Amino acid sequence: MKEQIKSYLNRYVHFNEEEIHTFCDFLSEKKFDKKEFLLKEGQVCHHYFFISSGLIRQFYIDEKGNEKIIQFAIENWWTTNIDSFTNQVPSALNIQALEKTTAYIISKKSLENLFISLPKTERLFRIITEKTLIAHQRRNYFFMKKKSKERYQHLMEHIPEFAQRVPQYMLASYLEITPEYLSEIRKKE
Amino acid sequence: MKEQIKSYLNRYVHFNEEEIHTFCDFLSEKKFDKKEFLLKEGQVCHHYFFISSGLIRQFYIDEKGNEKIIQFAIENWWTTNIDSFTNQVPSALNIQALEKTTAYIISKKSLENLFISLPKTERLFRIITEKTLIAHQRRNYFFMKKKSKERYQHLMEHIPEFAQRVPQYMLASYLEITPEYLSEIRKKE
Repeated sequence: MKEQIKSYLNRYVHFNEEEIHTFCDFLSEKKFDKKEFLLKEGQVCHHYFFISSGLIRQFYIDEKGNEKIIQFAIENWWTTNIDSFTNQVPSALNIQALEKTTAYIISKKSLENLFISLPKTERLFRIITEKTLIAHQRRNYFFMKKKSKERYQHLMEHIPEFAQRVPQYMLASYLEITPEYLSEIRKKE
Repeated sequence: MKEQIKSYLNRYVHFNEEEIHTFCDFLSEKKFDKKEFLLKEGQVCHHYFFISSGLIRQFYIDEKGNEKIIQFAIENWWTTNIDSFTNQVPSALNIQALEKTTAYIISKKSLENLFISLPKTERLFRIITEKTLIAHQRRNYFFMKKKSKERYQHLMEHIPEFAQRVPQYMLASYLEITPEYLSEIRKKE
């Protein structure tokens, strides 16, 4: 755990060896099988998850019963349902492992204690939250503004791993296009 | 400025008189006329804006040339284009005053200096960013999951000021419904 966390943390804020050790003490490791849920709609989200290995998706079920995927997350990404986690209210969305996944998890209470023990983690989580907000905003902007082909190209340019690791029908759901149209775009590449 | 900022800050983090004074020293006041733009598409967003009085909207122009409103902000709300501000890249969206508006503004460089001078502002901005992310996520969730009438009711329940202060066609744009349908919903209330 320590080496991965150290290299991740130092991208954003400098932590010395002792601080990294303290940081790791607040995390626990949890393994999820492929298709296992990290969080189900209706449950309160008790953890912030750092994906050590694997791949997860966040999705809603819309009023017609369709899955709407809003996020994929891979190694070295943090994920949670920030509303459910922060406000300790039932989650409106699901988080599910798409591959065998190992996550380092921290509870809300532990995170609050971590902020007190290591105040510079406030900076880290301020930056992580900004990055997540920017990703949400870009996704909304792209989906409002860009044609479906451009959305696909943007995704491929920024996170090409997804195309290899995520089933085609899920990529289509994320891009809000039909699987047939996605397959057509990919054939023309 | 000082009293409003003091009462705002102490909702989230305790700042003593001297710290509030320091915080205020980093802000400048700027006034905007009704319809004036705080930020235009294509410009780099140089400021984070704290709305002292007034009302603003954030909107995109979609590929068909239609305005898509994604946020309103009123007194005691922070607003910026977080992507453009953080990464100093051209903005994909517009921010415009809908009423005569007074904002306290801080530049990216000043905000970085503020984080150094008063490290507890990291906590404040971590919380503000979380709240903004939650608002984005809830809006997405509601728009994917709920019928247009429920979206309207939810807005009225949480931020009733908007209905009084925002022109009906803009409320409709925000709710992603037609002005005619909004008018029908409101008649039935």
